[in-house]
Amino acid sequence: MMIGRLNHVAIAVPDLEAAADQYRNALGANVGPAQDEPDHGVTVIFIELPNTKIELLYPLGDDSPINGFLEKNPAGGIHHICYEVEDIIAARDRLKESGARVLGNGEPKIGAHGKPVIFLHPKDFNGALVELEQV
Amino acid sequence: MMIGRLNHVAIAVPDLEAAADQYRNALGANVGPAQDEPDHGVTVIFIELPNTKIELLYPLGDDSPINGFLEKNPAGGIHHICYEVEDIIAARDRLKESGARVLGNGEPKIGAHGKPVIFLHPKDFNGALVELEQV
Repeated sequence: MMIGRLNHVAIAVPDLEAAADQYRNALGANVGPAQDEPDHGVTVIFIELPNTKIELLYPLGDDSPINGFLEKNPAGGIHHICYEVEDIIAARDRLKESGARVLGNGEPKIGAHGKPVIFLHPKDFNGALVELEQV
Repeated sequence: MMIGRLNHVAIAVPDLEAAADQYRNALGANVGPAQDEPDHGVTVIFIELPNTKIELLYPLGDDSPINGFLEKNPAGGIHHICYEVEDIIAARDRLKESGARVLGNGEPKIGAHGKPVIFLHPKDFNGALVELEQV
């Protein structure tokens, strides 16, 4: 098992259009369109950097996993980082052996990019929420 | 002004060797040596990914800027993200015009990589601490 690229950094934001405008206008970034992801309870905007992406996350629906984060962090904040792996089952099993917990039922779900993903428990990873995506 | 590459994601950790071992052993990452940066009050370990770096941050000295963060987040957490820019003075001035505050006295300092850096106020950037580094 070998960790791959940093696929994206996700930032939860309290105002999606304001955040997109700021990246577009003040930083001159290449900002994509807003995309609703009802299966994940988020609306996302991707910012394309030369080497990776920033994912702006905004709640979609009352059950959005971002609601609680924004209640605790009303100004927003860095929500998670996503590493690419070649084989998500092998990665999961090696991480579980090392003592890291996988969130949810432990099985990969199909993520916002249509690829299998898992999330690791932040308490087992230096307080950082880590997503692994099979590419 | 055009934002460049994501230079690194910095993660503050409560146990530097344990965090390095986890990235090395459980994720199979390419982990560098610990480097003391007394001018910045941190000891850092860089993890080289194919497209960017993870910077593990640990306090060095009683005045370390990481001490307060770890008091609030004892398990650690994602501390900041660093974007590359070509001209840090032009970037700073454009950001100030847009209403974003620069931390400290507003002048670039020489960062951990020997390049000029500034930090932007998290409240002006979706709760995310953003470092700009001139490359």
